[in-house]
Amino acid sequence: MLIALRMQTKSFARRAAFVLAALSLPSAAFADGLIDNVTGITLDKDGKVLRFTGLLISPEGKVVRLLADSEKRPVKLDWRADEHGKVLLPGFIDAHGHVMELGFRALELDLSGTKSLDEAKARIAAYAAANPEKKWIIGGGWNQEVWALGRFPTAADLDAVVSDRPVWLARADGHASWGNSAALKAAGVTAKSVAPAGGRIEKTGPLPSGVFVDAAQSLVEKVVPQPQPKERDVAFLKAQEILMSYGITATADMGTSMDDWLAYRRTGDAGNLRVRIMSYGMGVDTAVRIGGAGPTPWLYGDRLRMGGVKLYADGALGSRGAWLKKPYSDAPGQTGAGFMSDDVIRNYMSRAALDHYQVAVHAIGDRANAEVLSAIEDMADTYKGDRRWRIEHAQIVDPVDLPRFGKNGIIASMQPTHQTSDRAMAEARLGPDRLIGAYAWNSMLKNGATLAFGSDYPVEKPDPFAGWAAAFTRQDADGQPFGGWRPEERITREQAWWAFTGGAAYAGFAEDKFGRLGVGQRADFIIVDRDPLLASPTELRATKVEQTWIGGAKAWSRK
Amino acid sequence: MLIALRMQTKSFARRAAFVLAALSLPSAAFADGLIDNVTGITLDKDGKVLRFTGLLISPEGKVVRLLADSEKRPVKLDWRADEHGKVLLPGFIDAHGHVMELGFRALELDLSGTKSLDEAKARIAAYAAANPEKKWIIGGGWNQEVWALGRFPTAADLDAVVSDRPVWLARADGHASWGNSAALKAAGVTAKSVAPAGGRIEKTGPLPSGVFVDAAQSLVEKVVPQPQPKERDVAFLKAQEILMSYGITATADMGTSMDDWLAYRRTGDAGNLRVRIMSYGMGVDTAVRIGGAGPTPWLYGDRLRMGGVKLYADGALGSRGAWLKKPYSDAPGQTGAGFMSDDVIRNYMSRAALDHYQVAVHAIGDRANAEVLSAIEDMADTYKGDRRWRIEHAQIVDPVDLPRFGKNGIIASMQPTHQTSDRAMAEARLGPDRLIGAYAWNSMLKNGATLAFGSDYPVEKPDPFAGWAAAFTRQDADGQPFGGWRPEERITREQAWWAFTGGAAYAGFAEDKFGRLGVGQRADFIIVDRDPLLASPTELRATKVEQTWIGGAKAWSRK
Repeated sequence: MLIALRMQTKSFARRAAFVLAALSLPSAAFADGLIDNVTGITLDKDGKVLRFTGLLISPEGKVVRLLADSEKRPVKLDWRADEHGKVLLPGFIDAHGHVMELGFRALELDLSGTKSLDEAKARIAAYAAANPEKKWIIGGGWNQEVWALGRFPTAADLDAVVSDRPVWLARADGHASWGNSAALKAAGVTAKSVAPAGGRIEKTGPLPSGVFVDAAQSLVEKVVPQPQPKERDVAFLKAQEILMSYGITATADMGTSMDDWLAYRRTGDAGNLRVRIMSYGMGVDTAVRIGGAGPTPWLYGDRLRMGGVKLYADGALGSRGAWLKKPYSDAPGQTGAGFMSDDVIRNYMSRAALDHYQVAVHAIGDRANAEVLSAIEDMADTYKGDRRWRIEHAQIVDPVDLPRFGKNGIIASMQPTHQTSDRAMAEARLGPDRLIGAYAWNSMLKNGATLAFGSDYPVEKPDPFAGWAAAFTRQDADGQPFGGWRPEERITREQAWWAFTGGAAYAGFAEDKFGRLGVGQRADFIIVDRDPLLASPTELRATKVEQTWIGGAKAWSRK
Repeated sequence: MLIALRMQTKSFARRAAFVLAALSLPSAAFADGLIDNVTGITLDKDGKVLRFTGLLISPEGKVVRLLADSEKRPVKLDWRADEHGKVLLPGFIDAHGHVMELGFRALELDLSGTKSLDEAKARIAAYAAANPEKKWIIGGGWNQEVWALGRFPTAADLDAVVSDRPVWLARADGHASWGNSAALKAAGVTAKSVAPAGGRIEKTGPLPSGVFVDAAQSLVEKVVPQPQPKERDVAFLKAQEILMSYGITATADMGTSMDDWLAYRRTGDAGNLRVRIMSYGMGVDTAVRIGGAGPTPWLYGDRLRMGGVKLYADGALGSRGAWLKKPYSDAPGQTGAGFMSDDVIRNYMSRAALDHYQVAVHAIGDRANAEVLSAIEDMADTYKGDRRWRIEHAQIVDPVDLPRFGKNGIIASMQPTHQTSDRAMAEARLGPDRLIGAYAWNSMLKNGATLAFGSDYPVEKPDPFAGWAAAFTRQDADGQPFGGWRPEERITREQAWWAFTGGAAYAGFAEDKFGRLGVGQRADFIIVDRDPLLASPTELRATKVEQTWIGGAKAWSRK
């Protein structure tokens, strides 16, 4: 037994790490690769713009060096790609999305973009005709506000186009669903049905009208056939493709279920996981059941990690599920409601924080935001260190509460396109006086909060260019309103870019791994058709992603 | 874009495989390692004994070459271990065990080995006193047959030693559990409680006596606090240590739950998974929820795979849950019962086989074995190819059914130590006439079945030397009965060894990866203190494992 001692401590994982590390040494059998002749732009770790023309990538897919035009290229290269001057940017990171829902939404009936109930009905009828084998018609993406319907749609509206089988369609924000009579019948919903706590059954006289808000959606969802694992795999690959087509190389998954997680692992085990997923378990039990004594390590070469817990403090503004300090302007007496009592939310946060899971709490209304801020303040004494408490959406904040975001290292995880989509609705729900702290990106920064941007896909498209443009204009795709909506909350182009890259990585404890193009970072980048720092807002929105590279390998390219 | 094309198809997994493959080339920076000066013994793929004195191992932990004494050793070595002539064997494989139960059993109150109810009571009292913080006292390992009690124990027996908190103790075979009055009270069990199908509540007059058989165990188990994920991790590491201490380097896990699987993954992700686990999901849903469209790939360097489905056709002989063609000799009128109807078991088998999950069905009684054989025969026409249908235990087989094991590539997954433990009980349960096809190892081989051996740990100790000795002697540790019990069912020492190594690997579709020491196989081996082919049965049972190596790395050694 001479040299066997060093074998005792060997494990496969450590050996693999050793092997990979050895390969990045100059003496290894593999040389670096080079993306050359690019108009490269990135932010550095201080948010300063850097430009370069070559990107040297190690065999393990990390950035070795950014090369200026004048710098000599290495002679010994494993591979070299000439991009003929095209623009190269770090991959975008979506700090708040729903990966599996994006995939399922893409495969199901999609009502997003419909401008009227009639248009939606036509699309439903066409889908039903094209999919006679489907036992249920499942889909979503509707928004009665966009339809200017002045009411929720009804089961009768749906029955007029599909009556032979159940139809169940989620609202664009996921906080309400709409069924036809066959769906209500399958679920056994009647006039006597009672909404569970945190939910509401819309009524026509004494009868359920067909729309179920927040927790009441479970009354029908419990009978909707669940997708099989192999269908989940298909949906995931679809979602991944969509994300890469928008230039997104990493994303937070805000509310990963056990079945979602198992699909990510299957994909990773098969070697098909490309986009990096910062996973937040749907509730404490899911996260802990997966991660055990703490977050999982980064898996599959920094492509997957169960790092935190997603909790919900309230619902959404559109369905009046957001929890407000004072009643809705357009629904006197209604304030929405909190999803959890004070002690329950603290109990969940405490259980998560105890084992160093990151806590991300959905809070839309000003009351919900104030409550979560109070809970974080109560927690911060006990759970010290680098916790990065996240408030998801942080949409409507009482101005007196804005400074509280700057304390305890809170991350405001916000979605710029919500502002442009919600503007009219928010004005109706809140009236003019409560808009001061609404979608208040600049106030967040000024108060010292860390800003992380996302899209909340599939509620919105996972298009970071739309979000980026909205962030420094407060205008929608049509340039409305002129001068920007509450323009004092605009932030700079660079601040917005950072929130979609380095800020979003920081929000997921990933800033050492990705989020910018710098030495030692994973070589996650995109090739696009224009310079986003020189483009007008309209031009920026029209940016086309041509290639998406993840970990130094091309993962997607436009056909 | 010159050479980027080849990058398009790169994935992390493929790259890692490429890197590892490159390292096994002579030109790589790493050289082989050598275990030298050993008394090496293995079976080759035809079951023939090979002897060698050196074992050359690649940097990735595979066997490069077996070296005879006369052969020259390579000069360039990465490491070398001199074993001073010690005996080196391939690691053992247990074809049927319960990994997590082994770990929990080791951490819980252990009644195995108790010779009387009084001894058990003393052990229970001592454990309760030593663990005042435990809200429930959980354990198992009792066997009223060994105690010669002539009856099941009762709640009153337990109340006499612990009455302040619930006590819940599993029978050694897991097919019955015994609670005290506090446990029955916590579960709300009363005289009115009805046993679910497939279960039985033992009674004292009209009242539950404290023992619950098979499915009836759920009446109390539903209120037993479940272990936390981090406790599962501790239990797994304990189980792994126990297995390695017995020289087991791979095992089938016969009935992996989702939480078991998640613990294996956490351990693998952390780089701490040593023993190779061939996982069979507890039921079809568990396997499919994990594996999706088919079995998972081998994970963590061939250390984990969800490859099949565990189903139960009946219970166990000790608790008279085994399903017999004719009534029990010691319980007139009772035949046990099947756990599933004909169509239900076929439906499960079909769902599993459709997606190429391997099917392993527990069958103890002759009726259960006949039913499973019929189901396999019905399946075999539809699901062709290499299916390796497994019958677990195959304990009591009607001699007319024995030839059916040789058809359709069936694997008889049997446990030699059950024969020595059960002998007296089996004679009582079955009477003399039904013993012809009981524990009929040699008949299985003669009829052309593939034999895979295991221990059914923690029902029995996971000691392959005890199983091996039993297999070629049909005698217990005390040498009883003289000449062996039904000695015509003895098999040879080499046949038994193969069933605990190559046969068990084949039973898990792993024969290309491990099960013997041959070129390209994972270097899984043990160093022991004697030559098992020269040892008397008693000496063989006393073999001490000194080191356990898995994948070319020392994973365990005796302190």
